[in-house]
Amino acid sequence: MDELKVIKVGGKVIEDETKLSSFLDAVAELKEPVVLVHGGGKLASEMSKRLGISSEMHEGRRITDSQTLEVVTMVYGGLVNKKIVSALQAREVNAVGLTGADLNIIESEKRPVETINYGWVGDVKKVNPFWLIQLLENGVVPVLAPLTHDGNGHLLNTNADTIASVSAVALCEHFETELMLCFEQEGVMYKSQRIQVLNPEKYREFKAPGMISGGMIPKIDVGMMALEQGVSSVSIRSYQEIGKIKAGTELRLL
Amino acid sequence: MDELKVIKVGGKVIEDETKLSSFLDAVAELKEPVVLVHGGGKLASEMSKRLGISSEMHEGRRITDSQTLEVVTMVYGGLVNKKIVSALQAREVNAVGLTGADLNIIESEKRPVETINYGWVGDVKKVNPFWLIQLLENGVVPVLAPLTHDGNGHLLNTNADTIASVSAVALCEHFETELMLCFEQEGVMYKSQRIQVLNPEKYREFKAPGMISGGMIPKIDVGMMALEQGVSSVSIRSYQEIGKIKAGTELRLL
Repeated sequence: MDELKVIKVGGKVIEDETKLSSFLDAVAELKEPVVLVHGGGKLASEMSKRLGISSEMHEGRRITDSQTLEVVTMVYGGLVNKKIVSALQAREVNAVGLTGADLNIIESEKRPVETINYGWVGDVKKVNPFWLIQLLENGVVPVLAPLTHDGNGHLLNTNADTIASVSAVALCEHFETELMLCFEQEGVMYKSQRIQVLNPEKYREFKAPGMISGGMIPKIDVGMMALEQGVSSVSIRSYQEIGKIKAGTELRLL
Repeated sequence: MDELKVIKVGGKVIEDETKLSSFLDAVAELKEPVVLVHGGGKLASEMSKRLGISSEMHEGRRITDSQTLEVVTMVYGGLVNKKIVSALQAREVNAVGLTGADLNIIESEKRPVETINYGWVGDVKKVNPFWLIQLLENGVVPVLAPLTHDGNGHLLNTNADTIASVSAVALCEHFETELMLCFEQEGVMYKSQRIQVLNPEKYREFKAPGMISGGMIPKIDVGMMALEQGVSSVSIRSYQEIGKIKAGTELRLL
């Protein structure tokens, strides 16, 4: 099987022109087929603020009301996605920007309201990899924005780490797939030291006393889920180290 | 050769939910492969206004400074494009939203500054129809936003009628291509009457004394250009009549 890298890059790299540029230089140098997944970070919050839309948050997660959905559709699906696509084209990489609605690649359902109503947020139901495979086999880099759709005409805001994870899983029957969740840190950190390897046992040991916490938890969880479902290799690493075979924190099942 | 319809739909239909919905219902009923091209109309101006960006105009044309380019990238490439794509998916039409940067479909160059600096506006240089053909042959409807790119990392604002025309030309070696430039009117009107057929001679007769004027002139010009370059049939018609064989104003070379 051919190798494939699914690379997710987070908000802070997207917000910084210099960092984004050096990241995309590195993407352009990769020899393997690549799927790129981007977040949008503060750019959506900033745009909401400029438009006078108040973003409600719950435990660090944005509540996506209909005005906020319009903003993330504009910012993630338009501004950020097309900036990355045109920057890759300038590096001779034939890229195509997609949301989950495009080519029906990722179907989701609106998160059910339990104690909290997250609004127009989608939990992934199904990935249809057919067109991703066609594009990858013809040298195209799909650039996925963190938006999915419910099949009834609604776009849904969806976590970018999750999009990267489910896409990697959907492609791992066809490619030997490596998932990299990239950000500004070296990896999962504890007391300024990088944790080199995390397996479920070690993860529990770190998590229970809160030595790993916050946004790192769902990131590790979606990474572990990808491993369980057949992705060959998963790491949480710096956006500056996507060309290295080993870097950051490697997740393992055993 | 298989038949293909390239359908451009303008701003006022996009702005009105009911009209857009009935238009997309009609698109979903078409049997032939379809390329859809959309404008964005006042939505971009409204968004600029909300963001406090002043859109300079020159003879009815917007000057695209860098802030305005960000707005049209968000509104055309994100908001409008993804709304249409998800609405088509809800109608069981597999659609994909694309700008000219995606898959390098439309390369353009920044319009040279002569008397007026139009800013980040692109004149089309080259259409690469390879992926459009792959998509169309597999039952996908490409939905093109009025944005192109210069190959150096810049997106450029590009007239939607022009995008429809050059795309129809690029596809007419592969398909028997019909171009429809659709809007709210019945066709090209003179004294509340629809002109049924316009050939270059009749067009000159109407144009010289100003019986046809304003935004209709460039629309007819790009339509005539498409005919000259091999498109089988070109009409300017109502968005409510895309299913009809003949409707609106038919352009002819003779």
